[in-house]
Amino acid sequence: MNLKPYLQAVEAYLEKYTYGTNPNELYEPIGYMMSLGGKRLRPILVLLGYEVFSENWQKAIPASVAVEVFHNFTLMHDDIMDKAPLRRNHATVHTKWNENIAILSGDVMLVKAYEILLQGVEDRFLRAAMQKFSRCATWVCEGQQWDMNFETQNEVSIPEYLEMIRLKTAVLLGFALELGAMLAGANETEQEKLRLIGENMGVGFQLKDDLLDVYGNPEKFGKQVGGDIIANKKTYLLIEALQTAQDDTKTELLKWLSVKTFSPQEKVKAVTKVYNLLGIKEKTENLIDSFFRKAFDSLAEMQADESAKEKLASFMTWLMEREN
Amino acid sequence: MNLKPYLQAVEAYLEKYTYGTNPNELYEPIGYMMSLGGKRLRPILVLLGYEVFSENWQKAIPASVAVEVFHNFTLMHDDIMDKAPLRRNHATVHTKWNENIAILSGDVMLVKAYEILLQGVEDRFLRAAMQKFSRCATWVCEGQQWDMNFETQNEVSIPEYLEMIRLKTAVLLGFALELGAMLAGANETEQEKLRLIGENMGVGFQLKDDLLDVYGNPEKFGKQVGGDIIANKKTYLLIEALQTAQDDTKTELLKWLSVKTFSPQEKVKAVTKVYNLLGIKEKTENLIDSFFRKAFDSLAEMQADESAKEKLASFMTWLMEREN
Repeated sequence: MNLKPYLQAVEAYLEKYTYGTNPNELYEPIGYMMSLGGKRLRPILVLLGYEVFSENWQKAIPASVAVEVFHNFTLMHDDIMDKAPLRRNHATVHTKWNENIAILSGDVMLVKAYEILLQGVEDRFLRAAMQKFSRCATWVCEGQQWDMNFETQNEVSIPEYLEMIRLKTAVLLGFALELGAMLAGANETEQEKLRLIGENMGVGFQLKDDLLDVYGNPEKFGKQVGGDIIANKKTYLLIEALQTAQDDTKTELLKWLSVKTFSPQEKVKAVTKVYNLLGIKEKTENLIDSFFRKAFDSLAEMQADESAKEKLASFMTWLMEREN
Repeated sequence: MNLKPYLQAVEAYLEKYTYGTNPNELYEPIGYMMSLGGKRLRPILVLLGYEVFSENWQKAIPASVAVEVFHNFTLMHDDIMDKAPLRRNHATVHTKWNENIAILSGDVMLVKAYEILLQGVEDRFLRAAMQKFSRCATWVCEGQQWDMNFETQNEVSIPEYLEMIRLKTAVLLGFALELGAMLAGANETEQEKLRLIGENMGVGFQLKDDLLDVYGNPEKFGKQVGGDIIANKKTYLLIEALQTAQDDTKTELLKWLSVKTFSPQEKVKAVTKVYNLLGIKEKTENLIDSFFRKAFDSLAEMQADESAKEKLASFMTWLMEREN
């Protein structure tokens, strides 16, 4: 499928939008963050959600950009909390400038997300758009807090993990589709259906991220493979492995989780070997599949323009099969 | 004047409002922050602004609370940036919990401020209220960034300082009055007049804060007197003193600004002595007076209910003459 027209429209809007100018310390990091790129999945979802119910997706461009700015606000603050040095192979804002600037620039980005949404929404949709955006923003923060809690929590169950990624990642994809549908004049039921499609796709999307972090092709992945393993990140893969492993395999896994000094390469290799032994790759692929399947099925059932549905479906396929 | 009815209404709304419940780590800090109290000046200003143009200020209560929640969001994030251990004699959120929690709870508070405002505003005012709130929120962040910049900037001029406190503090008082006026049905011109009254009052209010930090009665002030002097905070008092001082007085002042180890008490005493010599107290009082005077004059000129104007005027008098 050809995403170029959507991408170009989103980039063109971002290009001409001015967040502010003075003080420079506040606005430069915003421009920097937004310029790091990324796949712009969320604005594309707004536009594709719009197209399911109406032509002229161009009308939804400003609203779609609001979702991208919000997403980048969460990344800027998450990077502080995770003490991440890099984002898309560039220094994170709190590393390039400092934490205070990353906090405050992030705050302004959240305000700007509201402002851009405000500009992009007709009066008749304004209250609903603002309400649903705020609800979604709250969920995303809740997801980030759960994620932080899990770092120090001894046991995380699979349902707990899935709920965390639903909040932290999936609800925003759900909101993107819902917003697009809303602005195209879809009714509440249709909006809600599209929102849930986005949520299921979003959970599948994050699980795919977890999978690629271990099984990605290093040449295509773009990031270091094995980062989650090195950091003992409680992803679906690790939680499932901990639940399935027995005897020597369990001992081996626990050893690598508790070891303080180690060769990263060796740890990644050893834990991946445990995963292989336990069939974690296939289990993860099945779970990813089941979430995307739910999304595809619900989409197929919807009464809407077939070619627009087809477009969204190919986008979902692309997301599901992506290698980075 | 009797502020009790306003205060009780605001507290009652805050009491029954639930920000959220789960995860507790996210929401407990919000409840904690809001329970630390404060004077609730900003919601009161919304209600008094409303009353200038209409009765039934009760209708503006939710909107007034949104402004208070926003204000407390800025305090939570500012406290991280300033590394402040205490807020209203209690541990700050980042001290009691940690920085990450203070960042994220603050983020949710900003979202909740929008959400509460949304609930408190009729459709016909929604876009304008959201737009003006966002504009004000951006200004407040800009003010905080200037404030941080000034910490490491060698020279800060008096106009620069006044512009910083206008953004950081005064515009929110302006927005509070403007919002009240808007919701009471005042026209754009009247709203703008009230906003500027709030801004002038707000600059006077912050200058009074600076004055009290040096000249407050320790028994009434509630905070340690001299905190700004100890921290070399570039307030109006210091900037004016640096501009006025000559010869030995200048040498004495610069000595205290550069000294690394010192008795705080001794420094406060010595710098205050310099201020006294230069008549800084009187100069500050005159400047405070001039800002409040502008506010009083504009209010007097407004075509509105005289008794409601009188109420707002007494509130301003109380703000101007307060001792803590």
